[in-house]
Amino acid sequence: MTQKLWGGAFKEKVSPVVEDFTASIAFDRRLAGYDIEGSIAHVMMLARCRIISLREKNLIIKGLKEIAGEIKSGKFRFKAADEDIHLSVEKRLHRKIGEPAGKLHTARSRNDQVALDLRLFLRDEIGNILKLTKNMQKCIVDLAEQNIKVVMPGFTHLQHAQPVLFSHHILTYYYMLQRDVERLKDCMKRVDCLPLGAGAFAGTTLPIDRMFLAKQLGFSNVCEHSIDAVSDRDFAAEFLFCGALLMMHLSRLSEELIMWASPEFGFIEIGDSVLTGSSMMPQKKNPDVPELIRGKCGRAYGNLVNTLTMMKGLPLSYNRDMQEDKESLFDTVDTLKKALGVYPVFLRAVRLNADRLNSLAGEGFTVATDLAEHLVAKGVSFREAHERVGKLVRFCMENRKSFEDLGKEDFRSFGFGQEVVKLVSAAGSVKRKKSLGGTSPGEVRRMLRKARKTLYA
Amino acid sequence: MTQKLWGGAFKEKVSPVVEDFTASIAFDRRLAGYDIEGSIAHVMMLARCRIISLREKNLIIKGLKEIAGEIKSGKFRFKAADEDIHLSVEKRLHRKIGEPAGKLHTARSRNDQVALDLRLFLRDEIGNILKLTKNMQKCIVDLAEQNIKVVMPGFTHLQHAQPVLFSHHILTYYYMLQRDVERLKDCMKRVDCLPLGAGAFAGTTLPIDRMFLAKQLGFSNVCEHSIDAVSDRDFAAEFLFCGALLMMHLSRLSEELIMWASPEFGFIEIGDSVLTGSSMMPQKKNPDVPELIRGKCGRAYGNLVNTLTMMKGLPLSYNRDMQEDKESLFDTVDTLKKALGVYPVFLRAVRLNADRLNSLAGEGFTVATDLAEHLVAKGVSFREAHERVGKLVRFCMENRKSFEDLGKEDFRSFGFGQEVVKLVSAAGSVKRKKSLGGTSPGEVRRMLRKARKTLYA
Amino acid sequence: MTQKLWGGAFKEKVSPVVEDFTASIAFDRRLAGYDIEGSIAHVMMLARCRIISLREKNLIIKGLKEIAGEIKSGKFRFKAADEDIHLSVEKRLHRKIGEPAGKLHTARSRNDQVALDLRLFLRDEIGNILKLTKNMQKCIVDLAEQNIKVVMPGFTHLQHAQPVLFSHHILTYYYMLQRDVERLKDCMKRVDCLPLGAGAFAGTTLPIDRMFLAKQLGFSNVCEHSIDAVSDRDFAAEFLFCGALLMMHLSRLSEELIMWASPEFGFIEIGDSVLTGSSMMPQKKNPDVPELIRGKCGRAYGNLVNTLTMMKGLPLSYNRDMQEDKESLFDTVDTLKKALGVYPVFLRAVRLNADRLNSLAGEGFTVATDLAEHLVAKGVSFREAHERVGKLVRFCMENRKSFEDLGKEDFRSFGFGQEVVKLVSAAGSVKRKKSLGGTSPGEVRRMLRKARKTLYA
Amino acid sequence: MTQKLWGGAFKEKVSPVVEDFTASIAFDRRLAGYDIEGSIAHVMMLARCRIISLREKNLIIKGLKEIAGEIKSGKFRFKAADEDIHLSVEKRLHRKIGEPAGKLHTARSRNDQVALDLRLFLRDEIGNILKLTKNMQKCIVDLAEQNIKVVMPGFTHLQHAQPVLFSHHILTYYYMLQRDVERLKDCMKRVDCLPLGAGAFAGTTLPIDRMFLAKQLGFSNVCEHSIDAVSDRDFAAEFLFCGALLMMHLSRLSEELIMWASPEFGFIEIGDSVLTGSSMMPQKKNPDVPELIRGKCGRAYGNLVNTLTMMKGLPLSYNRDMQEDKESLFDTVDTLKKALGVYPVFLRAVRLNADRLNSLAGEGFTVATDLAEHLVAKGVSFREAHERVGKLVRFCMENRKSFEDLGKEDFRSFGFGQEVVKLVSAAGSVKRKKSLGGTSPGEVRRMLRKARKTLYA
Repeated sequence: MTQKLWGGAFKEKVSPVVEDFTASIAFDRRLAGYDIEGSIAHVMMLARCRIISLREKNLIIKGLKEIAGEIKSGKFRFKAADEDIHLSVEKRLHRKIGEPAGKLHTARSRNDQVALDLRLFLRDEIGNILKLTKNMQKCIVDLAEQNIKVVMPGFTHLQHAQPVLFSHHILTYYYMLQRDVERLKDCMKRVDCLPLGAGAFAGTTLPIDRMFLAKQLGFSNVCEHSIDAVSDRDFAAEFLFCGALLMMHLSRLSEELIMWASPEFGFIEIGDSVLTGSSMMPQKKNPDVPELIRGKCGRAYGNLVNTLTMMKGLPLSYNRDMQEDKESLFDTVDTLKKALGVYPVFLRAVRLNADRLNSLAGEGFTVATDLAEHLVAKGVSFREAHERVGKLVRFCMENRKSFEDLGKEDFRSFGFGQEVVKLVSAAGSVKRKKSLGGTSPGEVRRMLRKARKTLYA
Repeated sequence: MTQKLWGGAFKEKVSPVVEDFTASIAFDRRLAGYDIEGSIAHVMMLARCRIISLREKNLIIKGLKEIAGEIKSGKFRFKAADEDIHLSVEKRLHRKIGEPAGKLHTARSRNDQVALDLRLFLRDEIGNILKLTKNMQKCIVDLAEQNIKVVMPGFTHLQHAQPVLFSHHILTYYYMLQRDVERLKDCMKRVDCLPLGAGAFAGTTLPIDRMFLAKQLGFSNVCEHSIDAVSDRDFAAEFLFCGALLMMHLSRLSEELIMWASPEFGFIEIGDSVLTGSSMMPQKKNPDVPELIRGKCGRAYGNLVNTLTMMKGLPLSYNRDMQEDKESLFDTVDTLKKALGVYPVFLRAVRLNADRLNSLAGEGFTVATDLAEHLVAKGVSFREAHERVGKLVRFCMENRKSFEDLGKEDFRSFGFGQEVVKLVSAAGSVKRKKSLGGTSPGEVRRMLRKARKTLYA
Repeated sequence: MTQKLWGGAFKEKVSPVVEDFTASIAFDRRLAGYDIEGSIAHVMMLARCRIISLREKNLIIKGLKEIAGEIKSGKFRFKAADEDIHLSVEKRLHRKIGEPAGKLHTARSRNDQVALDLRLFLRDEIGNILKLTKNMQKCIVDLAEQNIKVVMPGFTHLQHAQPVLFSHHILTYYYMLQRDVERLKDCMKRVDCLPLGAGAFAGTTLPIDRMFLAKQLGFSNVCEHSIDAVSDRDFAAEFLFCGALLMMHLSRLSEELIMWASPEFGFIEIGDSVLTGSSMMPQKKNPDVPELIRGKCGRAYGNLVNTLTMMKGLPLSYNRDMQEDKESLFDTVDTLKKALGVYPVFLRAVRLNADRLNSLAGEGFTVATDLAEHLVAKGVSFREAHERVGKLVRFCMENRKSFEDLGKEDFRSFGFGQEVVKLVSAAGSVKRKKSLGGTSPGEVRRMLRKARKTLYA
Repeated sequence: MTQKLWGGAFKEKVSPVVEDFTASIAFDRRLAGYDIEGSIAHVMMLARCRIISLREKNLIIKGLKEIAGEIKSGKFRFKAADEDIHLSVEKRLHRKIGEPAGKLHTARSRNDQVALDLRLFLRDEIGNILKLTKNMQKCIVDLAEQNIKVVMPGFTHLQHAQPVLFSHHILTYYYMLQRDVERLKDCMKRVDCLPLGAGAFAGTTLPIDRMFLAKQLGFSNVCEHSIDAVSDRDFAAEFLFCGALLMMHLSRLSEELIMWASPEFGFIEIGDSVLTGSSMMPQKKNPDVPELIRGKCGRAYGNLVNTLTMMKGLPLSYNRDMQEDKESLFDTVDTLKKALGVYPVFLRAVRLNADRLNSLAGEGFTVATDLAEHLVAKGVSFREAHERVGKLVRFCMENRKSFEDLGKEDFRSFGFGQEVVKLVSAAGSVKRKKSLGGTSPGEVRRMLRKARKTLYA
């Protein structure tokens, strides 16, 4: 056995600079557990297909399990000359059990092996991320339920637009995340495919059994076409996109929380335990958590661009460029897990300034649309109603009055009946928005019940 | 009626510079047909819910249909002062039928209206793109079937690796595109939701019927939560990602075709009718089509980054930034339709140089793995077999021989039996790769039958 | 003359689908003026080098000038079958002046010609963008000068941090844009190079004079190496990056203006003439201009990614992928010109709520750092001073007091001398920040003078 | 002293989850050396300005130097609770020298401190990258000089276009990298500015001397405006762009080398010492180095997108999002250094197959343009000449002949004189391309001399 496991045809030793540059062991060691899991299933299949003996199978599996233990306990020594996790394990196995180790890589290439490792890894991590996302959704639903009576100004263009229930507003994020959940599940369908058994890319002349492998490793599907199996990284790109969109959603929530926590908005108070201070300014208490999450959105976008760029224009089948698929994947996985892990802690430290929200809800003529719709109900065309209310607003602005300052007389002079006086409260406005999915307490409660049912199903 | 349909509260006229800058009519006019379709459904609903009268409904629908005709025939005059497609149509309607036009926008905002238009547009275009993708897949399957006997060198790292059937190789692209089809269908689930009825974002006080709207417009689902309905552009981002990945796949095929058409590869001949010439070099015939498609991959990536960036950190609910969602969407739709439209024409003009492919298939010791697996079948460990074949290859290289130049004696001196001589043909190698999804004629034919069944289902 | 100007070696006509797909005339017609300018210089050179006759030169130039006129006046008919602007012009010239037209393309390829057109275009447009950027900077300086006495709360983490002059704050954007100016000028050095004379990429056997061409077309440098001259698009990518960064700067300003215009901040009032309304909500007045500009940041990023992706992994020399360089370049140019064109109009409609800013400047214990630095000046270590002021702040928070509510007694109990009472005004704090570039009126006025000098140099 | 250096105003301890999430020490420890260098300059300034005593200065500097030693030798223990490199060092200093440590952070914030660290780091690393780039350029120039006599087919659209000197072709990459050098130097102008002394963002009330700091730390300029100084990350984005473009250039070279090394091209042989093998296919020798570098282009693009996204829409002044600036910067620095470090090793193992290149140079009618230009020199219009040569090519193609197979008779029948026979050699064609920057040996040698002069200046 030469030092390199593939050195037979080589006349010269690989330059150490090249060895260092091409080695992936510094990061793919993270896949060690999956690599060994895959190898164990592989030798079980080889034995079952009588390509290796039962004795060999048992020896190899025993050795692999010991190595798994060594890695877990930190005893395993990784080095660049061993190139990657696959060869590191095989070499160690050889030192452990000798010759039979040479049978492990039968009917297998690193091309299908690494695709397997990545898919096993991602299958697990998508599961973890789904759990964390649901946990975050629960947190949002709790916040919505705890504050079901708070009315706040709803915004478009960051201007007061119409009063809404705070619960209605915050529930938007539940819906965003619910789409993330669905997208991740759709992505999972394409992750959950077995590539092992494709060999280098052309298949093998040995009588292997890929369906057995799939069953053994719990895959729902097989990456049928052997060239496709080793040259496909769609599943990684798709996951990176799902992650980018999820982080985009969190960046929007973060933006709102940061704004709400500013003294000018003052919509929320945040507990000291999730804030951090300034090294120079003694009074500062900063919402670093949502800021960092907003910033990390860039990271998720960058990782997506990284992988898309890498795959552009690659000829079939495997090219070494594809080694670059791992770090961006790991980074998005970690970013999602960290962000989804810390956010519930942060959200639970948030308290609404309910009085302020309630009192601001009606400011800025937020019931103007109600007045117009009231006219509509009385037969006026909406466009005329809009115009009339617009003029009323202009009158108020020029005279620095709110709707609540107006008397029946004022309303009448703009063509409104006296019943309008009752329409100007924000709380009343909210109650009247009974359309499906609208901000009325009934609709919001219905959506909350539905969300809870989905989450705790 | 003031000139602006929303001018009631304004003291000053909008500056023309601002009017020009904010107008979207130059590009959203493309949505005209969908806008009118949505408006017709909307007034049907308003009448059904007795918010407007039957007479008003009929007048409005008649007017809208006339406007649709004017737009189709190119008679409609769009201008920046009319801001966008929504107000352009409403204003025209007002000039046509007078006062009842003012009832069209009842219980509706441009926020839910534009979300509707975009979804109607995308629903249609995803349908078109799916058809074009399938057409492209059929073309690939045809190419695979027509050349089922051609063996070629399969590549990893752009080095000869193992012989494969050309049909096997090209079928990889069928599988890539099949994932695109599945992803687009998953995306469609999230596009196929009705946002109309969300109003500006809070719902409405008027007794509308969103389920009727959904049924009328053929939507499978309703964007239930009204704030989410107007602030969500996930469906656009997801489509842009699907498009980016599809273009990435086409960029890979393009890279291969461009290389194969080079004199050095000489794998294919391309008919003059799909090539273009040089203004300076009289002999040139260039494969511009795959080059441009490879280049347009950048466009699809750029459009995705555009929309992801635009949505980053946006507070709820609607912000004008979101007007920027359209052009990148249109551009990716057009790019996909053009690329998928021209590619079959190009592919049908491609002819394989079968003799060259067959003769290259065995060059570069591409059956080396078979030799190793042969030893494995005889009980040698794969790692030792790999080493032995490696040394044999080195011997051949140093003596400038191919496997076919070797006699039984040579093989014997490296420990191979005389039966090995029969293993060195590329065609034979291909036949022996019978593992599931491997390159054997049996497996490839099976995959072809399956593909054909899927495509013509 | 065949229909295609390069058809000699072709047996079949180009398929119309391919013709449509590969044609660039729909967008590169925008380069018509530059194309003709380049052609005129080219024939002057050809005549000077005695490659064509004086008579031919004059005929061609006369013809080209007429075509320029036809294009300007909209009479010129562009069609896809003419492929691109270069051949459209040459064909028209042939119909105009016959045979001598065939001499125009001597010693030239579309490869060097299009590189020339793009560089001429970009050279002009960078000039325009520099002017617009300076105009925007002047606007910022004016705003700073008009409000030199207004103190506002400076923010970190969107929390009140220290009082600053509004003029100081807004001047940050002058500095950002000044870096954009410098970067665009550096980029210009690499745009301002003549590629013409590179031919297809290998140069020419004809005795041309590239230095004359450079002089004639006003280029400071020549793209010396002929292969590099046609395969380089760095100048486009670099400009797209400069544009992306400039739009990022504008997105930051936009974010602030949008926030400041919210009722909660209420830092500014914006004139009706630069706001727009809502189709549904009669009271709405929205800051669409900064919102759209913030959104258009995505566009500039997307265009950069587009071109970087397109160039990735392209072999030398010219590849048709590179035709995709134009639309993203045009789009960023247009985006910058529109954004920089409208922003001064918008900014001039902005009025500060000076009273509100002045009164908020001291809220949130923004002078806390001053108190700590005061202790430092008296010999206390900064870390201890920070701690002591921190505790004072906590005392105030728990007792709902501001620093101004505290008496000498309170201060004394936390170890501050009685002189501290004089330190708690925001205006005073600003005056004391005399460090270089700090917020003191002296420093801000000095920076304003310097800015004005740079802008009006 | 509380545990947190900023905890005075806080009632609760920071949650460990938040502490972990917000800590940057895991990656910013890389800046330790720069952080201490900056701190030493800072205390020298504080002493000089009599803000601290000489004794304090000396104590602090001695302590800092010891800490620098501890970090270098790996003895320093970093922990998440210490947040970042700045506070880790300050806390350690406090444990070392007690009270005077509390004076280190006088008139300084982490906001200006981290900007300083990043700029010091990047200033160094740009220097390193410039050296490595020049080294790579030298390698290219060597390769060009060693192979000055080799003629090869020049390509457009990956089709044979015109013969060129190999030296001419490869020198293109020298020119690309030369632009990278210039761009990095331009970028350096904007990196080489001192932000220290800006404080948190508003400056300080203490009598500091920023010019002294700049001089002490070797900065050519001062980031004058204090708010800009802490909120600007342009220098990082600009560097990331320079890195993206440099990697794009390397990806193009890599693409060519990978293609040239394929058996079909066979343009080059690569020494075993820079190739790697396959775990499954015994004969494989793969050019992993250029493949990985081509793949790493995605990484550089992704890092750029990351930072641009992160900065989009950030209000002034410092926001915690900006902590995300570091890892992408580190990663691009490392990627560039690794790629530029390994590439010369790889290139030196490349040998041209000169015979093959020379013989292919004339294949594919690559001298066709010369024939047309020959007609031009005799007075024929280029367009007619192009057409005539085109027809000659078509004749040859249909009769499967090369130009060299044609007799004078054949040429005459297409209207060429007998002298044309002498024009059909590739080597002759190259010699005649004497235009400035063209492929003639004279021009190429001139460019080589110039390059060498620039590199060894």
